[in-house]
Amino acid sequence: MRSKLPDSKLSIFAVMSKLAAEYGALNLSQGFPDFDTDPALIQLVTEAMQAGHNQYAPLAGNLRLREKIAALVQELRGKYYDPESEITLTVGASEALYVAITAFVHRDDEVIVLKPAYDTYEPTILVQGGVPVPVQLEAPYTTINWDAVAAAITPKTRMLIINNPHNPSGMIFQKADLERLEALVRGTDILILSDEVYEHIVFDNQQHQSVVSVPGLAERSLITASFGKTFHTTGWKIGYCLAPKALMHEFRNVHQNTVFCVHHPTQVALATYLEESRHYLDLAAFYQRKRDVFIEAIADSRFQFTPSAGTYFQVLDYSAITEEPAPEFAERLTKENGLASIPVSVFNVDGKDDQLLRFCFAKEEKTLLKAAAILNSI
Amino acid sequence: MRSKLPDSKLSIFAVMSKLAAEYGALNLSQGFPDFDTDPALIQLVTEAMQAGHNQYAPLAGNLRLREKIAALVQELRGKYYDPESEITLTVGASEALYVAITAFVHRDDEVIVLKPAYDTYEPTILVQGGVPVPVQLEAPYTTINWDAVAAAITPKTRMLIINNPHNPSGMIFQKADLERLEALVRGTDILILSDEVYEHIVFDNQQHQSVVSVPGLAERSLITASFGKTFHTTGWKIGYCLAPKALMHEFRNVHQNTVFCVHHPTQVALATYLEESRHYLDLAAFYQRKRDVFIEAIADSRFQFTPSAGTYFQVLDYSAITEEPAPEFAERLTKENGLASIPVSVFNVDGKDDQLLRFCFAKEEKTLLKAAAILNSI
Ligand SMILES: CSCCC(=O)C(=O)O
Ligand SMILES: CSCCC(=O)C(=O)O
Repeated sequence: MRSKLPDSKLSIFAVMSKLAAEYGALNLSQGFPDFDTDPALIQLVTEAMQAGHNQYAPLAGNLRLREKIAALVQELRGKYYDPESEITLTVGASEALYVAITAFVHRDDEVIVLKPAYDTYEPTILVQGGVPVPVQLEAPYTTINWDAVAAAITPKTRMLIINNPHNPSGMIFQKADLERLEALVRGTDILILSDEVYEHIVFDNQQHQSVVSVPGLAERSLITASFGKTFHTTGWKIGYCLAPKALMHEFRNVHQNTVFCVHHPTQVALATYLEESRHYLDLAAFYQRKRDVFIEAIADSRFQFTPSAGTYFQVLDYSAITEEPAPEFAERLTKENGLASIPVSVFNVDGKDDQLLRFCFAKEEKTLLKAAAILNSI
Repeated sequence: MRSKLPDSKLSIFAVMSKLAAEYGALNLSQGFPDFDTDPALIQLVTEAMQAGHNQYAPLAGNLRLREKIAALVQELRGKYYDPESEITLTVGASEALYVAITAFVHRDDEVIVLKPAYDTYEPTILVQGGVPVPVQLEAPYTTINWDAVAAAITPKTRMLIINNPHNPSGMIFQKADLERLEALVRGTDILILSDEVYEHIVFDNQQHQSVVSVPGLAERSLITASFGKTFHTTGWKIGYCLAPKALMHEFRNVHQNTVFCVHHPTQVALATYLEESRHYLDLAAFYQRKRDVFIEAIADSRFQFTPSAGTYFQVLDYSAITEEPAPEFAERLTKENGLASIPVSVFNVDGKDDQLLRFCFAKEEKTLLKAAAILNSI
């Protein structure tokens, strides 16, 4: 049987979460909270189900929710997206990413991907018959070598994928990064797919720099966002895509075939919840405390690190401890020490190993302190 | 901008539901119930959320639910699918169909589609660079011309999509149909995608004939199924795919990129619900009563019909009333008479117009009687 993804492996998130469960390890691998969402939001979903919002939602999503998203984006990013034609609810940011790539990447089109990269971008490009063009960043991936990006652009480049704040590194883009990006793509028809699922999780009084903050970028950008990351409900699979009308039109042509629409009662609940809650504004401080608890607790360990600037991930360098490759070390740490993480090498070009592990700190303080105790013992 | 789907139109379901809402028409177009699911199931979803099942589910789905599905399929169809490797939960049957086509249809592969056909099959084939090969059935589409199907098979045929019970016609496959199909594909490497979302809705004491009931077909088949249709929750977007291990492996390679996983609390709730409820066994009788209420109430109208043998759709022939094409007549019926339906022509080859409209009878009796009164007045 001819496979479209002959080199596909089971997602590292599934692999490590499964291993963690098998060995009863603390699971700081796959990115999800070990605490729960606001009970008021759960109550709203219940009420939406009880009120009978259990049949198909509109294919673009519940209109009231799209209007709330438009207002939120306008307020925070200063740009208006038309709820009718420029906003679509998706099955998590995952589906938004999948559909955005599917809609625009044709056979033999090149797509530039900054590595380390989230593990669905490249298989999705390959499914389209496209050509991923990876640009490897230098560890610990806190700056982008735009000259290397420039060198990767060819007449076949159709799309460039960025992820800001950046998973796994915790890097955030500076305005200058986006300005450089804009200069690189100006005059081309290269689209930007900007994965901004951690947009509300930026630390140390920095500001999230969305692609919309730079004139000339928004017109060619699809932005993917996630309520799962923001409201601690990764398992509700609800995200959205923002894009100018002409791009959104193509996006919806695909989306109506992938899933048609998204879990309806959750959309109704979120529309109401967003009227009251300013929760997303507190998210940065909330996660910064968690980051700080975690990094302070391991300050005297043999792991080295630059504090994460955004996302809920912290990368740790273990090169002072062992020469073991990251996948093996991550596996051993899970099995023998009871702590699961993600080996960053799997996100790099050819598994380039910088001896880094990624830890998710979206966890209760007591979980973080337990994890730190394990790391301190190594 | 080069489009992957230059001929794509907004889904007829979105078009007609919107028109119905705009004109305050009774909406018997898009297929969804106007009554609600069991409050006990809603309560179980609430409990699952309250119990904290709000983070990612396993990518194949909650294991307990997969085990329940395996038991159900074993009991009803006499075939065992391994929950570990042969069952995957999907975002409605929609995603299952999308992923099944994506995983196996390569550029230039031909896919045979019996027309009228559900409107996502062909765009999904086109997105893969595949070639839809439509085989038009003769109105009112109650039998399949297998000679025409045989004639459509070429060395490039990669997949054949069937839908049983059949939407929009309400046709059900007889065992002889599946045996003929098996004979046609024997010795080839043609895969069968069997869309069986209405499997529990078969009338008049007939039995649903799943592809698994014919030796030699299951090995090459992917079956898609839907909890939305079965539990009156089309907006919860929860379905699944059954396939032999080797096919399921490729399916999951795509699924882990499209959405990774499905709404988690709903899965936990369904796993518990399926322990107690035998609801799906009553579904045929439940919908047969609705069909009968509807067709008896329009027996004296100028619409002609063969009673639907399965699904929750009834096709009506209006050729005795007007020569208007189906799309126009459906529009006029919505705007002027306050009753929305689906013009069947949109599902046919080149919009072949047999002057048929499809009505969804998954409605309260009072809705059906109101709709009938409108039809009787025409
Ligand atoms: C869909 S599982 C992956 C979760 C995640 O975003 C991450 O861990 O990076
Ligand atoms: C996803 S909207 C279409 C619903 C349906 O299955 C139908 O009406 O045929």
